[in-house]
Amino acid sequence: MLLKSGKLLSRYSELFLFAADRLEHMEKVIKPALKARKIVISDRFVDSTTAYQMGGRKLPGSLVSMINNISSEGIMPDITILLDVPPKKGIRRGTRLTGKDRFESEANSFHQRVRRTYLSIAGKEKRRVRLVPSAGPIMDVQQRIRKIINEKL
Amino acid sequence: MLLKSGKLLSRYSELFLFAADRLEHMEKVIKPALKARKIVISDRFVDSTTAYQMGGRKLPGSLVSMINNISSEGIMPDITILLDVPPKKGIRRGTRLTGKDRFESEANSFHQRVRRTYLSIAGKEKRRVRLVPSAGPIMDVQQRIRKIINEKL
Repeated sequence: MLLKSGKLLSRYSELFLFAADRLEHMEKVIKPALKARKIVISDRFVDSTTAYQMGGRKLPGSLVSMINNISSEGIMPDITILLDVPPKKGIRRGTRLTGKDRFESEANSFHQRVRRTYLSIAGKEKRRVRLVPSAGPIMDVQQRIRKIINEKL
Repeated sequence: MLLKSGKLLSRYSELFLFAADRLEHMEKVIKPALKARKIVISDRFVDSTTAYQMGGRKLPGSLVSMINNISSEGIMPDITILLDVPPKKGIRRGTRLTGKDRFESEANSFHQRVRRTYLSIAGKEKRRVRLVPSAGPIMDVQQRIRKIINEKL
């Protein structure tokens, strides 16, 4: 995969760097917030590592799962909302303002594997992971999320 | 452990960051040099991760060993020279010019565990790891290393 500098980064290094980042985020932000009884909303968590590093980059599932257990310290979200859109649409939306990052520059087959992995996690963990089809208008998506959260609270 | 900023870094994050650094160094420096039939001399390698992260930081040996296999891509040195000095003397030498880094600031018991782990690796891998007692004058140490290398070449 390409860094912004144009140099290749090994997919294993990428996994290790995400793991260190997540663990430090856990220790310094999430755990202190949970201890203070706050509600924590996180943009991505271990499912993304499974989807991108195992699904997308084809790293061994046993390795990704072990690294995820370490970096999350075994703490999992009460609810995970999976916003599902076809990859091409998602990338068009995601890059409109910011340009492509190193994942968004990957081939469509990469994004198909990422999506399949996310959907497979949602299939296995129905209680935690709520699938929200998100190809439609933003107001519909927002309403669905609101409903899921209200039920939980 | 303390970062220069004074903030704590998890020992697992430290392991992941060293692993990413080593793997990138492998890919971009060591493997191209070996391919060009150069002789590579490296200051530290996977044994240091075993000694510091498993011995010193007490991380599980199976995890450290797995991470080492990934980051070295299974490539091991022909010779490893272990310069052995009592920790207090080694730290006095190492910090004379540069001040203490985050390992050198650790307690003596930490350094004793690191040393024991290095010596245990040397005991298990006698062909690869050559122990050079290094408490004496620099000229003696240099002569011993010279002899080991000359025999190999």
